[in-house]
Amino acid sequence: MTAVAPPRSPRQRRADTLHRLENDVDAWVATADPAGTPHLVPLSYLWDGETLLLSTAAGNPTARNLRAVGRVRLTIGPTRDVVLVEGTAEVVEVDTEVADAFAAKTGFDPREQRDFPYFRVRPHLVQAWREVNEMAGRDLMVDGRWLV
Amino acid sequence: MTAVAPPRSPRQRRADTLHRLENDVDAWVATADPAGTPHLVPLSYLWDGETLLLSTAAGNPTARNLRAVGRVRLTIGPTRDVVLVEGTAEVVEVDTEVADAFAAKTGFDPREQRDFPYFRVRPHLVQAWREVNEMAGRDLMVDGRWLV
Repeated sequence: MTAVAPPRSPRQRRADTLHRLENDVDAWVATADPAGTPHLVPLSYLWDGETLLLSTAAGNPTARNLRAVGRVRLTIGPTRDVVLVEGTAEVVEVDTEVADAFAAKTGFDPREQRDFPYFRVRPHLVQAWREVNEMAGRDLMVDGRWLV
Repeated sequence: MTAVAPPRSPRQRRADTLHRLENDVDAWVATADPAGTPHLVPLSYLWDGETLLLSTAAGNPTARNLRAVGRVRLTIGPTRDVVLVEGTAEVVEVDTEVADAFAAKTGFDPREQRDFPYFRVRPHLVQAWREVNEMAGRDLMVDGRWLV
């Protein structure tokens, strides 16, 4: 057992969260079909300061679920340093600048694939916690508004 | 960019997967409600060689979804060394030996909490992959049977 650090301040959690959103490459992306069948895959993303951009094959369950239900819950970071985002997703067209930024960040260019739409995820809930002592105060954004 | 290792053999993937199932502590657990609202949380688990044992508060979305839908998709390991398990889950009672083993492995004893049921996850699909070059051959168990 390693000693558990004291809980971070709300400001520190927000700063750490924004740093992860900006610098991490992959997220765990959970979606579900309209019957409640869960799906979960790792996907690379691009954060633009307000939303996350994803891309996956149109025929994959994630893409079908996002089109059918439009709800997503994703995490960034390991299980003991969680950044959690819940939001809505929609298919978007992106311009060359954004597509170039996505490819540069993720090392993967959907434009080189056949039928890989982009999805924009708009967070309405953002949480961050490390260990059980950070479960209190884990809400950083609620209903789309930053609390801190 | 780091060089990507060549794809592992099926036997190596199965060995690595069983090692992770046995030795990792946390999984990313995706469930959904009957309307298709996805949920995703990290939970500690105990692997007994055939099934995973989880526990979470009865009032949490994961527990409600597992009772209502009974389907789960979970991952172990980081996004570039994925072990993925899809299966069914049901509430179970466990004996003292199993409860002790769960507490010893996870560092968390649901018996000390109020209303934390155990859920047993029986895999029907197990996949393992690291990078894109391992997407082919990622199926290790299909329809509940190990292919390798």
